[in-house]
Amino acid sequence: MQIVETVVEMQKIRRSLKGSVGFVPTMGYLHEGHLALVRRSREANDHTIVSIFVNPTQFGPNEDFDRYPRDYPRDFALLEKEKADFVYLPTPAQMYPEGYNTWIEVNGVTDRLEGAVRPGHFRGVSTVVNKLFNIVQPARAYFGQKDAQQCVVIRKMVVDLNMNLEMIVVPTVREVDGLAMSSRNVYLSPDERQQAPVLNQSLELAKKLWLEGERDSAKIRLAMVDLIKQSPLGKIEYISIADALTLRELEKTESPALISLVVRFGKTRLIDNILLGKP
Amino acid sequence: MQIVETVVEMQKIRRSLKGSVGFVPTMGYLHEGHLALVRRSREANDHTIVSIFVNPTQFGPNEDFDRYPRDYPRDFALLEKEKADFVYLPTPAQMYPEGYNTWIEVNGVTDRLEGAVRPGHFRGVSTVVNKLFNIVQPARAYFGQKDAQQCVVIRKMVVDLNMNLEMIVVPTVREVDGLAMSSRNVYLSPDERQQAPVLNQSLELAKKLWLEGERDSAKIRLAMVDLIKQSPLGKIEYISIADALTLRELEKTESPALISLVVRFGKTRLIDNILLGKP
Repeated sequence: MQIVETVVEMQKIRRSLKGSVGFVPTMGYLHEGHLALVRRSREANDHTIVSIFVNPTQFGPNEDFDRYPRDYPRDFALLEKEKADFVYLPTPAQMYPEGYNTWIEVNGVTDRLEGAVRPGHFRGVSTVVNKLFNIVQPARAYFGQKDAQQCVVIRKMVVDLNMNLEMIVVPTVREVDGLAMSSRNVYLSPDERQQAPVLNQSLELAKKLWLEGERDSAKIRLAMVDLIKQSPLGKIEYISIADALTLRELEKTESPALISLVVRFGKTRLIDNILLGKP
Repeated sequence: MQIVETVVEMQKIRRSLKGSVGFVPTMGYLHEGHLALVRRSREANDHTIVSIFVNPTQFGPNEDFDRYPRDYPRDFALLEKEKADFVYLPTPAQMYPEGYNTWIEVNGVTDRLEGAVRPGHFRGVSTVVNKLFNIVQPARAYFGQKDAQQCVVIRKMVVDLNMNLEMIVVPTVREVDGLAMSSRNVYLSPDERQQAPVLNQSLELAKKLWLEGERDSAKIRLAMVDLIKQSPLGKIEYISIADALTLRELEKTESPALISLVVRFGKTRLIDNILLGKP
């Protein structure tokens, strides 16, 4: 496994690679969810490149950029074990040099949900992913379903800008109690951690109701709220029942629907989601 | 020479091409300026692709999108003669399908000059060029110096987004009386056409003063204004003396400087520019 630290070196290596490249962009502090992406990439491509970059432009001024967890030695060991071919570690100064001023705006699908709560977040995400795609030039890029809106936004960017790659979304990997794996789970206190599976439980409840025929989004949401309230450390920020492609809220829960929610535990925002029907 | 009419067909052809691709994006109604770009591309690349697309998103609501001159048979004949390999003719519906909503914003250098007078113009330009670059994947792309700010904006986009291509700016081609070639020259009445070389004359005067040692931008501008006023059909919209890279206005005309101007003849905006020193 080779560690690559500059744009120029990454571009040079990319030019030398024959065959297909699979790409897994991450912010590091890797967990099983990331490793599932790496495995999928290795199955389908001649080379797998994993980037680790805590991207400053997708964090708001009061968000957790500085305290976002980092552990490069552990990440390298995990990727070595998964037989990733390259780990690419750009620096903020390389990605955003003095005078940097070009931004990708995916409008519409970024107005809602995380985009509404975190202004500028998706502009930062789409811009950095666009840059990484241009540097790495993958045939396939792998993202986790846990960040559902991010997947919708990046897919829209790829389609709208005619980017020459296939985007692959991999199901969320969960802890044994159902909590979606996330680098931010490390922020949780033991009590919070114990109650955090309520996000997944509320989504499973919604799915059960939907499979039983319930289509009234208000009723589904109410049932989720009732369940989550039994975990008093969790504060619901939003529960969205939306069209899985446009992210427009649905009064009737028609397939394909994306139910997504944010529950705060102390300062920690946990997100999770479930798809109903094929998107 | 092959005419390509869909995104999918262009992508398929691109995948089949071995060796380097040179790309000349145009809005058609070709003149010697465009053909100079095609020749430069043919000298340096294994394949040359020319696109013709009057891009609706770079025209304002009161601009000349509908009446912008078009003559495909003549364009095809000229490109055939220059031995271009492919002419790519996307349609607005293909480039901007229902629900299209992704935009490239190059901030800073788009605030001034043409960007200030034509809000949204450069957003449309950078977005369409980004898309065309992704479809055509050129090793080198060719642009005319006549659209000086466009060259600065696209170069900034290419650098900021780490796009994998070389951008080549080719000197402005002029009529024998010095008028910069432009598809819009066809709008000029005979009287206007006779006076239109005053743009180039004023730039040559500025260069002469600069070569003689004048560095006071106000004095250079005043001399240009005095000259242009001798052509009463022309109305000066702006004369800019700016840093050639940042486009910030210069009080002292230090190299590299870009002197650019817009003069209106009736409804027709003519633009021209000159570089002082190497950018």
